[in-house]
Amino acid sequence: MSVVYERVALIGLGLIASSMFWAMKRGGLAGEVTGFARSAETRDTAREIGLCDRVCDTVAEAVEGADLVVLCVPVGVMGSVAAEVAPHLKPGATVSDVGSVKADVLAQVGPHLPDHVHFVPAHPLAGTEHSGPRSGFASLFEHRWTILVPPEGTDRAATDRLRTLWEGFGAFVDEMEPEHHDLVLAVTSHAPHLIAYTMVGVADDLRRVTDSEVIKYSAAGFRDFTRIAASDPTMWRDVFLSNKEATLEVLGRFTEELFALQRAIRQGDGDHLHDYFTRTRAIRRGIIEAGQDTDAPNFGRAGPKP
Amino acid sequence: MSVVYERVALIGLGLIASSMFWAMKRGGLAGEVTGFARSAETRDTAREIGLCDRVCDTVAEAVEGADLVVLCVPVGVMGSVAAEVAPHLKPGATVSDVGSVKADVLAQVGPHLPDHVHFVPAHPLAGTEHSGPRSGFASLFEHRWTILVPPEGTDRAATDRLRTLWEGFGAFVDEMEPEHHDLVLAVTSHAPHLIAYTMVGVADDLRRVTDSEVIKYSAAGFRDFTRIAASDPTMWRDVFLSNKEATLEVLGRFTEELFALQRAIRQGDGDHLHDYFTRTRAIRRGIIEAGQDTDAPNFGRAGPKP
Repeated sequence: MSVVYERVALIGLGLIASSMFWAMKRGGLAGEVTGFARSAETRDTAREIGLCDRVCDTVAEAVEGADLVVLCVPVGVMGSVAAEVAPHLKPGATVSDVGSVKADVLAQVGPHLPDHVHFVPAHPLAGTEHSGPRSGFASLFEHRWTILVPPEGTDRAATDRLRTLWEGFGAFVDEMEPEHHDLVLAVTSHAPHLIAYTMVGVADDLRRVTDSEVIKYSAAGFRDFTRIAASDPTMWRDVFLSNKEATLEVLGRFTEELFALQRAIRQGDGDHLHDYFTRTRAIRRGIIEAGQDTDAPNFGRAGPKP
Repeated sequence: MSVVYERVALIGLGLIASSMFWAMKRGGLAGEVTGFARSAETRDTAREIGLCDRVCDTVAEAVEGADLVVLCVPVGVMGSVAAEVAPHLKPGATVSDVGSVKADVLAQVGPHLPDHVHFVPAHPLAGTEHSGPRSGFASLFEHRWTILVPPEGTDRAATDRLRTLWEGFGAFVDEMEPEHHDLVLAVTSHAPHLIAYTMVGVADDLRRVTDSEVIKYSAAGFRDFTRIAASDPTMWRDVFLSNKEATLEVLGRFTEELFALQRAIRQGDGDHLHDYFTRTRAIRRGIIEAGQDTDAPNFGRAGPKP
C-alpha cells in the first residue's frame, strides 16, 4: 500500500487512535503521525510504547502541517477540542473524528472549522471492552464497518481519500446520513450497551443474591453482558447524552416488547415465547454468515485457566 | 479416575447429555452408558456418531439395571418423563436431572419416584448456544459450577457419589436449596436470556432499520446478545414458564433500573450515568479473576474470515 496522508494528527490517544496508529504503520499509509492527549500520563505512556512518531504537548504542535486531523476524544468534548484545533489547521486539510454519534458531532464541530478545510466525520464500528493508549492493535478494524458521514457539499476527493485510509486498515466503508447513522447505532450499539449496564447493575444490587454468587455462576449467560458493561464510562455517558432521542426511542420499543414477553410468562403463553425465541435465531445466523461473528461455541472463548 | 457408576442411562440426548457421555468416557467414570431420545432422528444420529454405548428405542430398555438415570430433557416434560422412567428403576438407583430450574423439577419429578431410589437433582451451569446430539464435548463442564439440590433427607452417600461424577468432569460442585437456586439462576441466566431475546427481537422488528443493517453493524455491541438469543427455544420457553416468579421478580428490578437510567438520559444527568457505568466494571473483573471468563478483548473471538 502507499501513503494516503503525508502528515496525520491524532487528537486523543485511546483504543481507537492507538489502533489507527498501528494500522497506519503496518500498512505504510501515513508519513509522520503526531499525537496529543490531554493527560500527561497518557502522553508518557504513548512515548514509552512508541505510540505515534511524535507525541506533542500541545494541540497546536500536533495539528501544525497535518493533512488529516482525527478527533479521537469522547463525544461530549468534540466541540471544545474542535475549537482548540481550528486555528492551527493547514488550508486543504481534512478533519475527521471517530465518535459513536454523528448528528451531535456535526453540530458541535462543524461551526468551529474554517472554510479552507474538509470535514468528513467517521465512525469505525469496532472496539473492545478495553480502553486507553495500551489497548490498541493494528487489526481492530479488519472486516468491520466504518461509516463516513460527510455533510452535504463536502469535497468528493476528500471523502474518497479518507475512505482509502480506512480501506487500508482492512475496514469495509459505507456512507450514511447522520440521523440514520444515529438510529442504526442506537439499535446495534447504544441500546444494547445501556441494557447490559442495567442488567449488570441489577445483579450487583440484589440483596438476596450475593456478588460472589453472581460471579461464580455467571457462565450461565450473565457473563456475556459484563463484557460490554465494562466499556469506558466517560465515552458511554457522552454517547447516551448526545444520542438521546434515538436511544430513548429504541429503549421504548425494547420496554414494550419486554412487557409483552413478561405477560406471556405470567399467563403461561408458551407459544408466544417459543415463536419469539425461534425468530431471533435467524439474526444470529445472518451475523455469522456476514463474517461479523464466529460460529464457535461461546464465541470460541479460550478454555479455563489451568 | 475410576468408575463411579457401573451403568448410567441418559434420557434425552442433547448438548448436556452428549457432553456428559464424552466426559464419562474420557474419564473412565462409567461402565456402560445407555441413551434414549424421543426422536428417531436423534437416536439415528447418536448411533452414527457413537454417542452412548447402547442407544435404546424405549425408556424401559435404557433405564433397566441403571445405577444412575439422568433426565436430560426440557424442564416442561420432566414430570411425564419421570412417570415413564419410574416403573423400570432398579432399587437403590439414583435419579438425577440437568434442568435449569429446580423447585419446579422437584415438584414434578419427586412424586413419581418410588421410595427405593435416591433423587438428587442437579444443574450444570455450562452450555453453548448450540443444541442437539452433535453439539456435546467432553470439556464443557470444566471449571464451571454444577449445583446439586438434594431434597431434605436424601441419602448422603448418594449425593456424594453424584458429586464425585461431576467432579470427575472437571466441574466445581455446590449444594443449594431449590428456591435459592432458582433466584440465583434468574439473575445469572434466565433474566439475561430473556433480555437478550427481547433486544434481538426488537432489532429484527424496527421498520426504519433493516435486518441487513443490523447484521452488518452488529459488531458495535449487538452481536454479544445474539449468542444467547440463539439458544434452544423449547428449553428456554420451559425455563421461563417453570421459573416464573423469580424471573419476573428480577425483570421487575431490571425495568425499574432501566427506567431510572432512561430518566437520567432524558434529563442529561451525566453523573448518574457515569457512576453507574463505573460500578459495573468491578463485576467483570471479579468474573475474570474467578476464571469464569477470559480477559482477552472481545472474548478472544477468532479473527474475521479470510
